[in-house]
Amino acid sequence: MTDILSSYLGGQWVAPTDEGTVLVDAATGEPITRISAQPLDYAPVLDYARTVGGPALRELTFTGRAAILKQLGKYLSERIPAFTEVSLRTGATRRDAMVDVDGGINALFVYGSKGGRQLPDSNVLPDGDFEALGKGGTFGVAHILTPRTGAAVQINAFNFPVWGMLEKFAPAFLAGVPSVVKPASATAYLTETVVRAMVESGLLPDGALQLVCARPDGLVEQLTAQDSLAVTGSYQTAATLRTHPAVVASGARFTAEADSLNSSVLGPDVSVDDPEFEVYVKGLVTEMTQKAGQKCTAIRRAFVPAAMVDAVADAAVARLQKVTVGPPADETSRMGALANQRQRADVREAVARLQKAADTVFGDPESVPANFAAGADFAAGAFLSPILLRATDPNREELHEIEAFGPVATLIPYQSAEQLAALIARGNGSLAASLVTHDDAFAAQVVLAAAPWHGRILVVNRDSAGESTGHGAAVAQAVHGGPGRAGGGEELGGLRAVEHYLQRTAVQGGPDVIAAVVGGAQ
Amino acid sequence: MTDILSSYLGGQWVAPTDEGTVLVDAATGEPITRISAQPLDYAPVLDYARTVGGPALRELTFTGRAAILKQLGKYLSERIPAFTEVSLRTGATRRDAMVDVDGGINALFVYGSKGGRQLPDSNVLPDGDFEALGKGGTFGVAHILTPRTGAAVQINAFNFPVWGMLEKFAPAFLAGVPSVVKPASATAYLTETVVRAMVESGLLPDGALQLVCARPDGLVEQLTAQDSLAVTGSYQTAATLRTHPAVVASGARFTAEADSLNSSVLGPDVSVDDPEFEVYVKGLVTEMTQKAGQKCTAIRRAFVPAAMVDAVADAAVARLQKVTVGPPADETSRMGALANQRQRADVREAVARLQKAADTVFGDPESVPANFAAGADFAAGAFLSPILLRATDPNREELHEIEAFGPVATLIPYQSAEQLAALIARGNGSLAASLVTHDDAFAAQVVLAAAPWHGRILVVNRDSAGESTGHGAAVAQAVHGGPGRAGGGEELGGLRAVEHYLQRTAVQGGPDVIAAVVGGAQ
Repeated sequence: MTDILSSYLGGQWVAPTDEGTVLVDAATGEPITRISAQPLDYAPVLDYARTVGGPALRELTFTGRAAILKQLGKYLSERIPAFTEVSLRTGATRRDAMVDVDGGINALFVYGSKGGRQLPDSNVLPDGDFEALGKGGTFGVAHILTPRTGAAVQINAFNFPVWGMLEKFAPAFLAGVPSVVKPASATAYLTETVVRAMVESGLLPDGALQLVCARPDGLVEQLTAQDSLAVTGSYQTAATLRTHPAVVASGARFTAEADSLNSSVLGPDVSVDDPEFEVYVKGLVTEMTQKAGQKCTAIRRAFVPAAMVDAVADAAVARLQKVTVGPPADETSRMGALANQRQRADVREAVARLQKAADTVFGDPESVPANFAAGADFAAGAFLSPILLRATDPNREELHEIEAFGPVATLIPYQSAEQLAALIARGNGSLAASLVTHDDAFAAQVVLAAAPWHGRILVVNRDSAGESTGHGAAVAQAVHGGPGRAGGGEELGGLRAVEHYLQRTAVQGGPDVIAAVVGGAQ
Repeated sequence: MTDILSSYLGGQWVAPTDEGTVLVDAATGEPITRISAQPLDYAPVLDYARTVGGPALRELTFTGRAAILKQLGKYLSERIPAFTEVSLRTGATRRDAMVDVDGGINALFVYGSKGGRQLPDSNVLPDGDFEALGKGGTFGVAHILTPRTGAAVQINAFNFPVWGMLEKFAPAFLAGVPSVVKPASATAYLTETVVRAMVESGLLPDGALQLVCARPDGLVEQLTAQDSLAVTGSYQTAATLRTHPAVVASGARFTAEADSLNSSVLGPDVSVDDPEFEVYVKGLVTEMTQKAGQKCTAIRRAFVPAAMVDAVADAAVARLQKVTVGPPADETSRMGALANQRQRADVREAVARLQKAADTVFGDPESVPANFAAGADFAAGAFLSPILLRATDPNREELHEIEAFGPVATLIPYQSAEQLAALIARGNGSLAASLVTHDDAFAAQVVLAAAPWHGRILVVNRDSAGESTGHGAAVAQAVHGGPGRAGGGEELGGLRAVEHYLQRTAVQGGPDVIAAVVGGAQ
């Protein structure tokens, strides 16, 4: 690791000239590197993307770009062990690193594979069929999607420094649009490590990817109408950027993916002896502890039939007691650290507010975890115990409003499917929900009631649990995003995300000229 | 017509209690009616949409709602003569009224027909196929689209009081989402007339449509996450609403369709003797004079090969000289009036600015039109001569920046396809472009270069001209909208517009439960 992170701009690595700010190891507080505390001159950065990156990408076709994504996936796969070592310093365990690092690389493979199989060997993607607009058939309309000619500016969150970058980069690249990546400071060193490998691979056309390790001040001021801005972060960050005068005046496309109060439901059909009971409790604990709960899709609201809350609480506590919290590099650690002390302070503050509406069943945010690794430093590292809360009144506003972005979930009782649907909706829009039930009719009822509020809903039972990708995993094949509080955006969903970087145009004319257009002269 | 326009709220017509503001006949300046100058209490309006309209619509299915749209189309079709009489008072000729009134009703038929044929008899629209996420096939993902449960607030522009309402209402209704329509004041009496007929038809479920004839202050403050706001108007209006703190905080969906500097291109292959020459000139004059040029899709920039500008100017002037400007009710009037004096003042101001970058070939914005109807009152009516300008330097900023929203277009010379593409792009995003050429290769080259900047591009030649729907027509089968300055939104495009009122959700689980969900219990 260099002393201070460089940015990759205009085809070269550029080191900052200021002292910068120290970035520390999540588990030890030790300095890792520094990151510039000053902004860059962003005009040439976006100009390079538009004038060098975009044309170079559009010289390829969807097919050609898909092939590069696959090759890049292979190249990075060979370097997973090295990336994982760096990932440990973010507080992520080796298992957590798989979600971020391997998961991110998998997005390259999914887009490479789908792009190669399903997209044309041109830059024109037909969207629907030719439709005649007259009886003679001499005139009609067809729709096409073509690459936008601007830059894709991507502002990522700290919790997935690799996956967050690659799940945005892959569809933009496949679309033929150059990326300008701005990672969150706290974990930018891991993003920088992976970008170095991507650059070294020699696979990417010049200008297809730039990396900004600097303050973003002045970045969005450079946006123009063909650019796009994709943001992952808090609802507040998304709202600030969405209404930024420069963003609005530019006419750039804006999408956001924000944390949300995701729900997981235990079906009323499930008794403690049913296999679904264990599936539910195991899933809840996994979501609490994986990445130390720092996932925008993690379960925050665990809805359980009122009569089952005791049983679920007991079973969850039994599992949580076995969760060893400790240094990510320790093989025995089941849960690592939060990203940094500031995150820990934020979570503690949120838990304190939640505790006004819920009792604490497990864990104390101020104290050393029950099962804390010997030799780990609770003061210097950003460790936190998993915390399970339990509400009595499901209508308390706090439960549906306050998100503790850490290993924190709340058990909430419900009485009926109707009440459940209403409670879920009080999250005001979420990324993900899950139902664990063996009753398909109940599942269908709740899924359809909850669908307008969600980007993704998972139903698991004894038959599907073995292959289930789990509540929190944003697999590249499924839409990731959600309405309302979740930001109103949409990512992934297979090739759906590629369309966000394309412009849809209705082409009207005779069948011959439309065939010539769709045929796709570049 | 009543003395003052009522609003249709909560299932009844509500007259305002204030004196209101006078609305006048575009051609005579005579008072027609008044419109309230006070806002309504909008909380109960949106509440009624969400709690009465939405559930009533969702009790039906896509199929059921499609059938109602068809019936409504028939019911309104029988009343076209009466609507047309009212439309004349907006300044529109009988031929113009067909674009607005008949065109709007046609959108009902298109959505009724497409919905009936292509959408399921449920409220769950499958989006793509089931995709297994494991080798055993026990778990996978499918995507569905379901009706959002909020209100669709629709703020329309003055120039299409019927079409503007119906092209937004039809897809929202088909989606199962209730509309709250806010027409522009200047022509709200025509919208009110049509809404009265829609209500009297008895075809619409209670709460499916409400009409706001009042100041909108406080309306967007009531938006919540499941609502949507669709705006047609100026770029500035769109930008103001897009960044309104209440809109952003709500998480409501926002789309805008704004005026733009649309281009029409004469191909370099066309000589004065080719049929395309007349097609081009005729199209240009039609776009200048239809609706007195008050169309967001009208041609503002007429790109002509440098060597052909004289010929096109001469031919256009010859046609413009024959355009009788006069009272819309006169059968001899080829062009009516602008909506009101304020619009005329705005157009005059914009023309004055354009004249710094272009010479005037035809028309004087301050003077009585050359071919003005006897007995018409130029001072009292909002009449204006068609105005054709001609630029020498195609790079002047004014040409690509200033929109005169009236019967105004500018001839701009170009030298090559590359220069043409760059000039078109300087409009910074447009709703529509057209090319008149018999050279398919040239057409394909320009279409693909211009596609990222456009929502719709029309190519016309001798073979397709007969059935062509024309540059300006936003037919319901084609996408209407555009990037950048055009607002960044998308309307129509057949069933594509329905999706804007639905929420896409990835449903993960076993094939059985996904089948149960897609099967669509309501």
